Amino acid sequence: MQEEILNAVAELRQLDPPERAEALSGFPADQARLIFEQLEAPLQQEMLELLPEQQVDRLVEDLDPDDRVRLLDALPEEVVQTLLAHLTRREWRLTHKLLAFPEESAGRIMSPEYLPLSPDHTAAEALSLVHREGRKVVTINVLPVLDEEDRLAGLVSLGALVLAEPDDRVGDLMMDQVPTVAPETDQEEVARLIQAADLLALPVVDESQKVLGLITVDDAMDVIQLEEEEDFARAGASEPLDRPYFSISMLGLTRARLIWLLLLAVAGALTVNVLAAFESLLERVISLSLFIPLLIGVGGNSGAQSATTVVRAMATGDVSEAGTLRVVARETGVGFLLGTGLGLLAWLPVYVLFDPAMAATVSLTLVAICTLATLVGSGMPLLAQRLGIDPAVVSAPVVTTLVDASGLLVYFLIARTVMQL
Amino acid sequence: MQEEILNAVAELRQLDPPERAEALSGFPADQARLIFEQLEAPLQQEMLELLPEQQVDRLVEDLDPDDRVRLLDALPEEVVQTLLAHLTRREWRLTHKLLAFPEESAGRIMSPEYLPLSPDHTAAEALSLVHREGRKVVTINVLPVLDEEDRLAGLVSLGALVLAEPDDRVGDLMMDQVPTVAPETDQEEVARLIQAADLLALPVVDESQKVLGLITVDDAMDVIQLEEEEDFARAGASEPLDRPYFSISMLGLTRARLIWLLLLAVAGALTVNVLAAFESLLERVISLSLFIPLLIGVGGNSGAQSATTVVRAMATGDVSEAGTLRVVARETGVGFLLGTGLGLLAWLPVYVLFDPAMAATVSLTLVAICTLATLVGSGMPLLAQRLGIDPAVVSAPVVTTLVDASGLLVYFLIARTVMQL
Repeated sequence: MQEEILNAVAELRQLDPPERAEALSGFPADQARLIFEQLEAPLQQEMLELLPEQQVDRLVEDLDPDDRVRLLDALPEEVVQTLLAHLTRREWRLTHKLLAFPEESAGRIMSPEYLPLSPDHTAAEALSLVHREGRKVVTINVLPVLDEEDRLAGLVSLGALVLAEPDDRVGDLMMDQVPTVAPETDQEEVARLIQAADLLALPVVDESQKVLGLITVDDAMDVIQLEEEEDFARAGASEPLDRPYFSISMLGLTRARLIWLLLLAVAGALTVNVLAAFESLLERVISLSLFIPLLIGVGGNSGAQSATTVVRAMATGDVSEAGTLRVVARETGVGFLLGTGLGLLAWLPVYVLFDPAMAATVSLTLVAICTLATLVGSGMPLLAQRLGIDPAVVSAPVVTTLVDASGLLVYFLIARTVMQL
Repeated sequence: MQEEILNAVAELRQLDPPERAEALSGFPADQARLIFEQLEAPLQQEMLELLPEQQVDRLVEDLDPDDRVRLLDALPEEVVQTLLAHLTRREWRLTHKLLAFPEESAGRIMSPEYLPLSPDHTAAEALSLVHREGRKVVTINVLPVLDEEDRLAGLVSLGALVLAEPDDRVGDLMMDQVPTVAPETDQEEVARLIQAADLLALPVVDESQKVLGLITVDDAMDVIQLEEEEDFARAGASEPLDRPYFSISMLGLTRARLIWLLLLAVAGALTVNVLAAFESLLERVISLSLFIPLLIGVGGNSGAQSATTVVRAMATGDVSEAGTLRVVARETGVGFLLGTGLGLLAWLPVYVLFDPAMAATVSLTLVAICTLATLVGSGMPLLAQRLGIDPAVVSAPVVTTLVDASGLLVYFLIARTVMQL
């Protein structure tokens, strides 16, 4: 994309909705389309409400089918129906095809139009076909090769066709055994595959190996960014922002975060109950209360380490579902080692500044709390995945909150035993 | 990349180092190179120590210059010197060129070989040039167009050349005003630019607009993944793993995390001091201790929300350095709103279960602690950036630890005032 389009996108993002719509109208139609395409769906939606109907129809008609579907997903049903009704027959058909697949699936983000080659084409024939027909499809960097029954036989890159001798057969130039995905495959899995295989485009095929569409590398990059935003936001106890930071009001930001804070605070209220149960112990040994924030802090951090490591390893495919128990066992072992290390280091200062019983209590609690935290930290995301919940939802903040209450329980049980109270 | 290569990479990742080296030797040389290229640098390093010298030289010689530099970065100096000495003159020259640029810069990840076109070439001439010379360079999907003084005039895609009429001039087909970067530009900024502009390759140019190399989209995807790993791991209080999860021993995982936990625990020891300073207050009103974990938990979570939002917005370029003060002001405002909301909700249950003074103390502390936490949470990463530190280093865990101690101080000061003790 040209630099002036990039700059225009960055500038439009900073504006208020009415100014943004006006600014877009000032660009020639082809540039306006490129700029519009790059904006976040909620911003696109606002603009559709503010622009004249004719320009709206033009913008929506010109979008690639997969970009159009992403926009329609963000719109209220009646607006979708109006927009669909104004599409040409051909674009309407392409859009409907994609809308039939589940949200966040490969079918939603693929480009349903592609240029099929035959293994019997020569390189020269293939290039002249691309020259004649290539403008009709979204990508010509990679071309699917179909056998006589229209099943995927391989992929050939445009580069390979140009480098080949004119008489070379496409069947000999193509990469067979290419990775493919089904239309129902999760979009994150698709994006990771494109990244791992260094592909410019990945074919989406049905059960009989018929090609339904192609997913291009720029769509994969967008998916990876969105999914990372989501994981990252949830690891920080909030939901991802669906638009640029400065285009959200303070009330909007507050609303997006309050529900998370509230749920965590309700779960955190458990700690009040645990402490109330041990109130008489606390009254007798007031110095026990001094270590509460430190101990649950360490527990929270080691739990967050486990949760983050496991969520990440799951996202990148390092940890499959089969390896679940092994991960939990390893993480809990690491927690035990961490707790033992910290417990040994903490013993002397607490012994000197307080007393032997307190030193033993704090050190033993560190061992127990780190072991417990890594168990919960690794177990929760894996359990979430089994239950079909995004593992990132139960990462660091949820783990920390759970470890707070259970860690306190462990602390007071150890204290009672060590101090024989 | 073919599916069998992908599968081989996944399998080799699971093996122990000696088995991994042996398995690689079993593949034909060209497949072995593709597999080797996809493995993480530490795994590559282990294999180099285990494979026969001749195969090592062959593997390193066959790598693309930018992949080779990435590998060399991970190796000890004497191994680097031996490997460099065994390279052919041409590959040696290319490698040295890249090694001259700072780590994590555009210069390190670019491909220094490219095929230059002239604006006066016709499309047919350009295609025949690519046909003859294209095998020598890493990417032919995008080609730089140079003016008569060898300065970058624009970029043309191979697709555009194929779609054009044979007589069309490259100067008319090319995209002028393309985004470019300097060789010193940070690799993350480069990757984000490639993503934002949907480019297949981005030119790296010197001050006089001479092209030094091209950065391809697959390199950009790898950079984004690495940088995300880093941000995500640090948000979870650890350092990113540089190799697959299961290839790291439990002791290795423990070592990687212990230093973070230890630093946070030392900072967390501040909380012991704060509590000790208010020990007599705690003795008189023991129920004050019941709310400690809940209050610092809420503070930690709202601080983590701010830190995560700001770190993310900075990484994606939503928040520039100029907007710093505005971000901190907004976040602190959001914190005040969140605290007010939670304070209002908490008042009734605490009033009913405890007493009016405790209800006032808890509610006021929630307002203060959320405001404070969002101030620290947004301020720390922005301050870190000013100081040239990766903002992710001071995200959620550090913010939470700082808010623990300062939040307790605020809690007891409010309690002393409200309860007039």
